[in-house]
Amino acid sequence: MSIGVCYFPEHWPREQWETDVRQMADAGIEYVRMAEFSWRVLEPERGAFDFEWLDEIVELIGEYGMQAVLCTPTAAPPRWLVEERPEIRQRDRDGTVRDVGSRRHYCFNSAAYREETERVVRAMAERYADDPRVVGWQTDNEYGCHGTTRCYCDDCADAFRDWVREEYETVDELNEAWGTTFWSQQYDDFEQVDLPRPTPAQDHPAMLLDFARFSSDSVVKYNRLQADLLREANDEWFVTHNFMNLFESVDTYDFDEDLDLISWDSYPTGHVQQAGGETTTDELRAGNPDLLSFNHDLYRSVLDRPFWVMEQQPGDVNWPPHSTQPAEGAMRLWAHHATAHGADAVVYFRWRRCLEGQEQYHAGLRKQDGSADRGYDDATRAAEELFDLDHVDAPVALLHDYENAWALGEQPHAPDFDYWQLLQSFYASLRAHGVQVDIVHPESDLESYDAVVAPTLHLATESLADHLTAYVESGGELLLGPRTGVKDAHNKLRPDLQPGPLSELVGASVDQHESLPTQFEPTVAGTDGTNAEYAFRTWAEWLEADAAEPLLEYAGDDIEGGRTAAVRNAVGEGSVVYCGVWPETDLANDLVGSLLDRAGVRRMDVLPDGVRVARRDGHTWVLNFGSDPIAVTLEGDASWRLGGPEIGPFDLAIAETNAVDDLSVRIRD
Amino acid sequence: MSIGVCYFPEHWPREQWETDVRQMADAGIEYVRMAEFSWRVLEPERGAFDFEWLDEIVELIGEYGMQAVLCTPTAAPPRWLVEERPEIRQRDRDGTVRDVGSRRHYCFNSAAYREETERVVRAMAERYADDPRVVGWQTDNEYGCHGTTRCYCDDCADAFRDWVREEYETVDELNEAWGTTFWSQQYDDFEQVDLPRPTPAQDHPAMLLDFARFSSDSVVKYNRLQADLLREANDEWFVTHNFMNLFESVDTYDFDEDLDLISWDSYPTGHVQQAGGETTTDELRAGNPDLLSFNHDLYRSVLDRPFWVMEQQPGDVNWPPHSTQPAEGAMRLWAHHATAHGADAVVYFRWRRCLEGQEQYHAGLRKQDGSADRGYDDATRAAEELFDLDHVDAPVALLHDYENAWALGEQPHAPDFDYWQLLQSFYASLRAHGVQVDIVHPESDLESYDAVVAPTLHLATESLADHLTAYVESGGELLLGPRTGVKDAHNKLRPDLQPGPLSELVGASVDQHESLPTQFEPTVAGTDGTNAEYAFRTWAEWLEADAAEPLLEYAGDDIEGGRTAAVRNAVGEGSVVYCGVWPETDLANDLVGSLLDRAGVRRMDVLPDGVRVARRDGHTWVLNFGSDPIAVTLEGDASWRLGGPEIGPFDLAIAETNAVDDLSVRIRD
Amino acid sequence: MSIGVCYFPEHWPREQWETDVRQMADAGIEYVRMAEFSWRVLEPERGAFDFEWLDEIVELIGEYGMQAVLCTPTAAPPRWLVEERPEIRQRDRDGTVRDVGSRRHYCFNSAAYREETERVVRAMAERYADDPRVVGWQTDNEYGCHGTTRCYCDDCADAFRDWVREEYETVDELNEAWGTTFWSQQYDDFEQVDLPRPTPAQDHPAMLLDFARFSSDSVVKYNRLQADLLREANDEWFVTHNFMNLFESVDTYDFDEDLDLISWDSYPTGHVQQAGGETTTDELRAGNPDLLSFNHDLYRSVLDRPFWVMEQQPGDVNWPPHSTQPAEGAMRLWAHHATAHGADAVVYFRWRRCLEGQEQYHAGLRKQDGSADRGYDDATRAAEELFDLDHVDAPVALLHDYENAWALGEQPHAPDFDYWQLLQSFYASLRAHGVQVDIVHPESDLESYDAVVAPTLHLATESLADHLTAYVESGGELLLGPRTGVKDAHNKLRPDLQPGPLSELVGASVDQHESLPTQFEPTVAGTDGTNAEYAFRTWAEWLEADAAEPLLEYAGDDIEGGRTAAVRNAVGEGSVVYCGVWPETDLANDLVGSLLDRAGVRRMDVLPDGVRVARRDGHTWVLNFGSDPIAVTLEGDASWRLGGPEIGPFDLAIAETNAVDDLSVRIRD
Repeated sequence: MSIGVCYFPEHWPREQWETDVRQMADAGIEYVRMAEFSWRVLEPERGAFDFEWLDEIVELIGEYGMQAVLCTPTAAPPRWLVEERPEIRQRDRDGTVRDVGSRRHYCFNSAAYREETERVVRAMAERYADDPRVVGWQTDNEYGCHGTTRCYCDDCADAFRDWVREEYETVDELNEAWGTTFWSQQYDDFEQVDLPRPTPAQDHPAMLLDFARFSSDSVVKYNRLQADLLREANDEWFVTHNFMNLFESVDTYDFDEDLDLISWDSYPTGHVQQAGGETTTDELRAGNPDLLSFNHDLYRSVLDRPFWVMEQQPGDVNWPPHSTQPAEGAMRLWAHHATAHGADAVVYFRWRRCLEGQEQYHAGLRKQDGSADRGYDDATRAAEELFDLDHVDAPVALLHDYENAWALGEQPHAPDFDYWQLLQSFYASLRAHGVQVDIVHPESDLESYDAVVAPTLHLATESLADHLTAYVESGGELLLGPRTGVKDAHNKLRPDLQPGPLSELVGASVDQHESLPTQFEPTVAGTDGTNAEYAFRTWAEWLEADAAEPLLEYAGDDIEGGRTAAVRNAVGEGSVVYCGVWPETDLANDLVGSLLDRAGVRRMDVLPDGVRVARRDGHTWVLNFGSDPIAVTLEGDASWRLGGPEIGPFDLAIAETNAVDDLSVRIRD
Repeated sequence: MSIGVCYFPEHWPREQWETDVRQMADAGIEYVRMAEFSWRVLEPERGAFDFEWLDEIVELIGEYGMQAVLCTPTAAPPRWLVEERPEIRQRDRDGTVRDVGSRRHYCFNSAAYREETERVVRAMAERYADDPRVVGWQTDNEYGCHGTTRCYCDDCADAFRDWVREEYETVDELNEAWGTTFWSQQYDDFEQVDLPRPTPAQDHPAMLLDFARFSSDSVVKYNRLQADLLREANDEWFVTHNFMNLFESVDTYDFDEDLDLISWDSYPTGHVQQAGGETTTDELRAGNPDLLSFNHDLYRSVLDRPFWVMEQQPGDVNWPPHSTQPAEGAMRLWAHHATAHGADAVVYFRWRRCLEGQEQYHAGLRKQDGSADRGYDDATRAAEELFDLDHVDAPVALLHDYENAWALGEQPHAPDFDYWQLLQSFYASLRAHGVQVDIVHPESDLESYDAVVAPTLHLATESLADHLTAYVESGGELLLGPRTGVKDAHNKLRPDLQPGPLSELVGASVDQHESLPTQFEPTVAGTDGTNAEYAFRTWAEWLEADAAEPLLEYAGDDIEGGRTAAVRNAVGEGSVVYCGVWPETDLANDLVGSLLDRAGVRRMDVLPDGVRVARRDGHTWVLNFGSDPIAVTLEGDASWRLGGPEIGPFDLAIAETNAVDDLSVRIRD
Repeated sequence: MSIGVCYFPEHWPREQWETDVRQMADAGIEYVRMAEFSWRVLEPERGAFDFEWLDEIVELIGEYGMQAVLCTPTAAPPRWLVEERPEIRQRDRDGTVRDVGSRRHYCFNSAAYREETERVVRAMAERYADDPRVVGWQTDNEYGCHGTTRCYCDDCADAFRDWVREEYETVDELNEAWGTTFWSQQYDDFEQVDLPRPTPAQDHPAMLLDFARFSSDSVVKYNRLQADLLREANDEWFVTHNFMNLFESVDTYDFDEDLDLISWDSYPTGHVQQAGGETTTDELRAGNPDLLSFNHDLYRSVLDRPFWVMEQQPGDVNWPPHSTQPAEGAMRLWAHHATAHGADAVVYFRWRRCLEGQEQYHAGLRKQDGSADRGYDDATRAAEELFDLDHVDAPVALLHDYENAWALGEQPHAPDFDYWQLLQSFYASLRAHGVQVDIVHPESDLESYDAVVAPTLHLATESLADHLTAYVESGGELLLGPRTGVKDAHNKLRPDLQPGPLSELVGASVDQHESLPTQFEPTVAGTDGTNAEYAFRTWAEWLEADAAEPLLEYAGDDIEGGRTAAVRNAVGEGSVVYCGVWPETDLANDLVGSLLDRAGVRRMDVLPDGVRVARRDGHTWVLNFGSDPIAVTLEGDASWRLGGPEIGPFDLAIAETNAVDDLSVRIRD
């Protein structure tokens, strides 16, 4: 496990470079990421490449025993290029050009920009093909950031037409697949296919879903151009890209063949401010651990391989609504947390506070005057404490994909229905039980998992149904959430009743659904006579059990009272629970706890808020994201590897244990 | 009284049609509305009309004893037409094209689209001119929906110039009428007249009012084109159009010569979510009865003839913020409620849940798999229970028009001043007293009404003053609300003091006005020494009584304390009350109750919230829109026609009575 | 001290003019402002000037002993001009034209409009050059109103390139000054410099600051064109312009050479509704006295000369969210308040309520029918009571400038960080102590001030540091607020630690900063052991004291607990306090009270809310902006000039005193 840092040598005088590099090495840093936005200094005029400065700093890094990770500089084409080839710029939906003046001002489908990309990436790749100090590459930077996945330029319109032609053999097939008889929307010819344009009313949902697919595919294809060039130059290099927090418009799973390593950019106090809902002061100081580890687990699972945090928040950051200071030690806590969830490197962004441009006021490991910034000691300490580990082994899978996010995002049918929040509701319960989770595509191989949670599978095909049925029949334990089995692959309502192809597996069907504003305070109750009542929110489905047995029914005397809200069905060696409501915490915890028990997954009692336990390679991290100190008891032959049973605010400890239930945790009085 | 349903046969395989039609007939359905968005299936290529499918379904409908209501398909021109004649598309105020891809993508002033409309309407009308199974037509669909009444294309700019030239003989007359000396806005020539464009500051209010008039006139003229073609083909057909909930941009009164029947589209749980303000769970389950009946009464009064509900919510709907399930029986309650307010048919929208396009997740009378949806039994029961009735006879008129809504909408002078809400405040009091109300244009013949309520007559001419004075002098009882008599017909402030031409009738004038944010909690008190204090909101006028006697004065020690807030003036055989504030419920109830008593209108004591009584042709409906059961006592020779004295949640009963005060209602313990 | 009124004779029939003018004279009015939007009546067609009507009304005004202030009519070019020269119109950032149809539809950088301006101003100036009844001119009207300071047309793009070329000799110098290496934003050539355009992410902050400077300079240059023409015609005239409440986009200081008099437009009940935050009913009736006097003090200080209120609210106004009626007497209170703060004339806007156009519903001194409106008696009374006075003499300066507002406005780093509100926090404390304040540019001569308060000096140069150090060394007392010394003159972060060049003067540096949402309830405590704890908001800096002594430290046990929040440093004959937090009221009062005491400034105990004392030329006004009556005690040889010791709601009194601490004020029981 390694610590790295992002460095922009072009922002600083050369006479300072060696001091910077020496301080990095002293801090235990192993990787230095560079050249992310350096096109204009690498190529001040067309064709006049200047690598001399980059050679020099790469050399210095090597001298001090570190390795360089280089970036292709395509996220910010220089002004001279935009001036020569203005057609590379994206357009907004209403036709407004997204102009040069910040970053990401290029279209993924621009043939001109593909040419320019090829030119610059090839030049860089060839320059460093034989340089042993360059260990790998990051392509571009944060694809899709600032809403740039979806572009409405003429190149995109042409490319979308081609994409649709590829997908559907004839225009009749297209009309059938999308369902265009509605509102007289039939296409007479593929030439009529167009991007979403400003229209009087809402857009056609099938077109929108395919436009989302096309847009994501465009990014994948653009990235492939870069990855191929890099691999051609040196196939020992790893190629990665830095993805973002709960980033929706790009389907990360589709990068599996073109990247050797997945990385993401982690800014805990920023992400939590963007997450919506109420935020505690502890979260404003250290972020929400489940929000962070959701990303860790997702990006780890894409390649089923350790991931990197390519940008790790080093202190206060400039871009969230408020620039709160992280808690003491938070920068160390985050590095451990990422490691426990499968990271092999945590790269702090950035080395020094930047004096210029849009990211002023963003902390570094060093301040602008060279003195230590708040994160420096944390990074150094993490570098000392962390050690090499095998890959995370998770007993449970949570099913996730981007197409469901796109489909539900266009037709939420409730202002507060958010795909990612629904996933978080179930995921947080898994984390509260201390269980490690892979976040995988619904069509993944599920054999290795004792239990599978699918918070929703809105789009559902027969083959997905077969896949899940096989899993359960062979002994798997499956928990399905609401809005499952509603649509076909084209975002069209299915002709059979929900959950469509999953009805037989579930042993029940949905009679009606509704979405509920907060004036209602709806609850369900167990059908076992225990009178336990649980709150839920946002969505309710009235189930009709067939083979299944009722598990929950609606409480209260409103119209749904007494109807079935959840069912359990034994199928083959396993069983499936279908829950027709969006559970609040207690219900999610009980559903998940029972699932784990049925599946024989070792778990903890529900952990206190802000306390999380994560397990990798025989080591169990106890991570305190809260301001209350906690006490941990070890059982059996467990022992402490780092720290011990009393853990202060925003601190952590590592135990060596056989399983998570060798520990118990409580808030100290 | 009949039940109907909207059907889209083109969405379903032909082999299913007969099953669908038979089930409709079994349910008691009499009318089937079709072809609303069918242009592309009716005319797959220019000139190649295909009526065969429509012939077939019309024939089936006839065979099963039902009648067809056909729609002209102009609300959604097909892609091939837009491709050939792109100039038909509307533009937003900033010039952005409103493109094909949803519906209503055409401009009412497009000469090209008028040609196309004529072609398609003529073809359909001729095809079915002699078909006895087609009983009538709906023109287009929901004119103006999605903000499409007002368009900013070049055709509209030309048409607006023509409209202005027609209205004003010379440009000097225009300058005088609009008042353009202000901010140097004089026109030198009619050619300079333009649509509202993006300007640095707000627009000229007189221009805006005429633009609103012009835009509404453009819709009326476009509808006339269709109506004339239909009548030319078969003048036995009724011609209708389906208007919308509190829809403001189109002046429904101007359709009086071109339509034989007014209809509207009623979605109670949707409308109540759009209405603003706090919404109760009962309203989320069944809508607000006064909001619904306001529409019923308005659309009934336009032609003073029974109206239709052309689309009646059948269950959950997809487009409001939340898709709440209606209460048990709500679909039946709405049908009765509409009937009691003068409907002769209630047409449920739609027969089956739609699998494709923008309206997925919208309930039908049948689910997508053909099984009964929630509304099916309600519709069947309503078909059985309802019977033929004479027209509603209302003793009271509420004055309403669109020009006041437009003028006040542009210059509300308080963020919470909404014309429709002000009308609702007075209307709800009339409904709470169980009194049937016509909603009529201020210039209507008022002779037949015992009492008239004008919540506001912001624009006021001398002839309107004469009209109202004649009404009062001959014994009418008139209640006027605030902001009356402020402006002339051109939305210019009048040179005399408010209420301008009505000052003599009112016997008072307005010294000052103000609008009040919620930091103030203003009250008025009766001047009769009873110390009754009433809350009001938003607007206050300080009156100076002349011939009139003070009725209310401002309470409290703020600056308006002791000034006059309302007056009463006896004029001829009648009297007029002018109320200078926007009353909260208690004040509105007392003002309206006194008015009714003075006018000798038989009324009830104020009904409980959610309970409404409506009377038609000797029958009195008691309608419970609440979740508490109610008890009804009959007096005199009244008797029950349907149901009885105990009425459950969302249920109803019908009594035969001489007048509404033969009943009394209370919430059951 | 004089009272004036704004009059639009072109709105009224000539036969009414003499009545209007006579009533003005009777009311004690001395100045009549006219012709503000009269271009179209002055020049109905190109070149055909018609001054006859203006001659006539000027003559009438002279006959009745009053003087005319004329306006150049350029704020609203007539339609014929826009039709001939459409290129004069501004564009929005996305390219949308800001069209004719309201006002301010011209670009300051349009060569065409400069020609037209020259033509019309020269014609007017020559016409009245020798007219003794015309005493001065207002150029245009409210420059920049409706967001029109910043324009995005081609003329502006050219002008901005020229401006940048002027500012920076070479493109390398530009790149260095702005810091364009960030995100590969280097310019290769000045031709690439462009206005801010729609870009995917945020704009470059250095470019934005220069664009703000350029935009303000464009207005200054345009005004100079007018001022020069007027002075050329008659250099006895005063030339003024009417600025606006806390108006940010135009740097008023840069008008110092081109204007003889600064004026502004005061609408107390409107401004307070725009100010954000909670508003009391007293403020809705009379405005916030500190918000008003901040403007008075600012506009007085620009030329260090008495200012005018060129438009004074006369009653209810049409444009704020709510049109509340001012308290009884408020129009008089405002005139006295302005006078006490240095006004030599208060000009009510407008004479009569306007019947037409966008400003209908705006009160006048007379109603539309000619009768007295609410403000008439107040204006008359003020005219009688007010008398001539020497200039205000202020012992304290508050440092303010526009560039800091622009820089912080682009990068607030907290949604609730507003430059003007931060200034108000300190200013209100000065006013609560009854101390008269000049609001001056940081680089002003400070010698005459006993104390100086700089709420923030975000942009800080070495020369500013020298200037302030010299002030303190020679005995000045300086109070500095947070975010001082962060940036260089180009809006680039400084390479040294905050407060950069001021570090030596302050004797401390900033280790870290953070912004805090309202979930935190942060406090600081005195380091003197008194346990006094003070609330603060929004911003916190962790200080490291060097030569300075700690004054405040963070309280509580959050991460900043115990760190230094404020320091005091003795330097030469004076001392400086640096406060690293945004103080809530109690802390601001204690910081300011101590400052005044150290500086030997005579002050009062903190005044009750809504009560303010202001002093000019030996007279002390006690002004009650609240609805509670107050009692005033005089000490020493102080005596009453107007009113006496008991002052009712919204009333005032004037005492003759030696200093403010000759009075004490309390709320009466």
